[in-house]
Amino acid sequence: MSRMTSRTLTLEPAEFVGVTLVGGGPGDRELITVAGIRALLGAEVVVTDRLAPRDLLAELAPDVELIDVAKLPRGRSARQEDINDVLIDRAKNGKSVVRLKGGDNYVFGRGFEEVLALQEAGVPIRVIPGLSSSLAVPALAGLPVTHRGVVHDFVVASGHLPPGHSDSLVNWDALAASSGSLVLLMAVENAAAIARTLLAGGRPCDQPVAVVVDGSLPTQRVVRTTLERLSGAIEVEDIRPPAVIVIGDVAAL
Amino acid sequence: MSRMTSRTLTLEPAEFVGVTLVGGGPGDRELITVAGIRALLGAEVVVTDRLAPRDLLAELAPDVELIDVAKLPRGRSARQEDINDVLIDRAKNGKSVVRLKGGDNYVFGRGFEEVLALQEAGVPIRVIPGLSSSLAVPALAGLPVTHRGVVHDFVVASGHLPPGHSDSLVNWDALAASSGSLVLLMAVENAAAIARTLLAGGRPCDQPVAVVVDGSLPTQRVVRTTLERLSGAIEVEDIRPPAVIVIGDVAAL
Repeated sequence: MSRMTSRTLTLEPAEFVGVTLVGGGPGDRELITVAGIRALLGAEVVVTDRLAPRDLLAELAPDVELIDVAKLPRGRSARQEDINDVLIDRAKNGKSVVRLKGGDNYVFGRGFEEVLALQEAGVPIRVIPGLSSSLAVPALAGLPVTHRGVVHDFVVASGHLPPGHSDSLVNWDALAASSGSLVLLMAVENAAAIARTLLAGGRPCDQPVAVVVDGSLPTQRVVRTTLERLSGAIEVEDIRPPAVIVIGDVAAL
Repeated sequence: MSRMTSRTLTLEPAEFVGVTLVGGGPGDRELITVAGIRALLGAEVVVTDRLAPRDLLAELAPDVELIDVAKLPRGRSARQEDINDVLIDRAKNGKSVVRLKGGDNYVFGRGFEEVLALQEAGVPIRVIPGLSSSLAVPALAGLPVTHRGVVHDFVVASGHLPPGHSDSLVNWDALAASSGSLVLLMAVENAAAIARTLLAGGRPCDQPVAVVVDGSLPTQRVVRTTLERLSGAIEVEDIRPPAVIVIGDVAAL
């Protein structure tokens, strides 16, 4: 990597025999890290999924093997096992493999499952963090998750299971009682149940809510509502994933 | 910005007359975004503080005016007002100004205060998110903040005020009751009081804790302990800021 002094900066490929997990950020091609893009420049194989930055995939060198995990032939194993197998196979063949995800690897990204599988297989691993959509998407929509004198903590939770579901690990009552901003990912489908639980737990009816749809992309839009009206707003505005839901006073700033 | 196809990528300066707030990430020069480094390449003035990536500052073009806010002459106003004044002054003189911070602008970064001041002054603003140390520092130390089947939510809180302080906005009892990973920034000094409050609120004595000191830098180290032993470990290991404290089962992974 050159120095910035000349007012341009040339990035060289970073080669790493093994697997580099790269957090691709929220979707915009410039919201990946310099380390992440250098890993992509040095990749012989890129294993990607739905939310990784599409524009970057389109400009990979023609000799790069691009594997979309949504299109992997399904074996008898779970999808994650299929992904692990592909990563291990290519790495054991001496390839420089990049596993590119949307957001950050470790924020609901199942990255650590891949790390464990790769470690067990004896494959060298590097992890390059990415901008988590939980923070970057609100920021790009003009919403700070903390603000001095308003809020000094925030919670990020997955809404892929509704409150009370037997597999749910989230204590929604505690989150209702917390004073922090609440940032929900994968929560569009269960938003009505989550809002009911938060209201029952003491969050005020008129607590501000902002829903950021397609964050960082040209189609980005922000819907402002309140906790009481959240599920109605999702219906009326025809909100579909991916969306980030921000609940708390910062959603009105 | 060129395309990646040729296996190198040349970044051109992004010029923006006004102020670009850039999250610089946790400290390593490659953990800034592509958009962030392009803003730096196009900057005529860079206003920075203590935790911004030092290596990048060292290689700014010689004609860039570099302003370290720690060294601003103190007027009668608060430091933040002095910073706002410098940003507004340079922008009103038609300069391309970058406000470079460590981590992300909106995670305890006071970025939104600057946005409000700049808006009031009629100065054009762009905001480029950065990797928040709250997520990137644990990741670089090998700690996922979420892990399927273990934890599906996490809290990020500032520990700059102890529980019970009259200015504190954090409901520590609710955080004690939550099931999520707890990530604390600026909490070294108040760690003993915070640990006592979390234990009193129901977190188990042997809950795993990891303290990551100097995250992403060559001096990075990780101290593993438990909630009960946290304050002793900070003393024995002579832990000083900056440090990120991770509390929860993920700290033992």
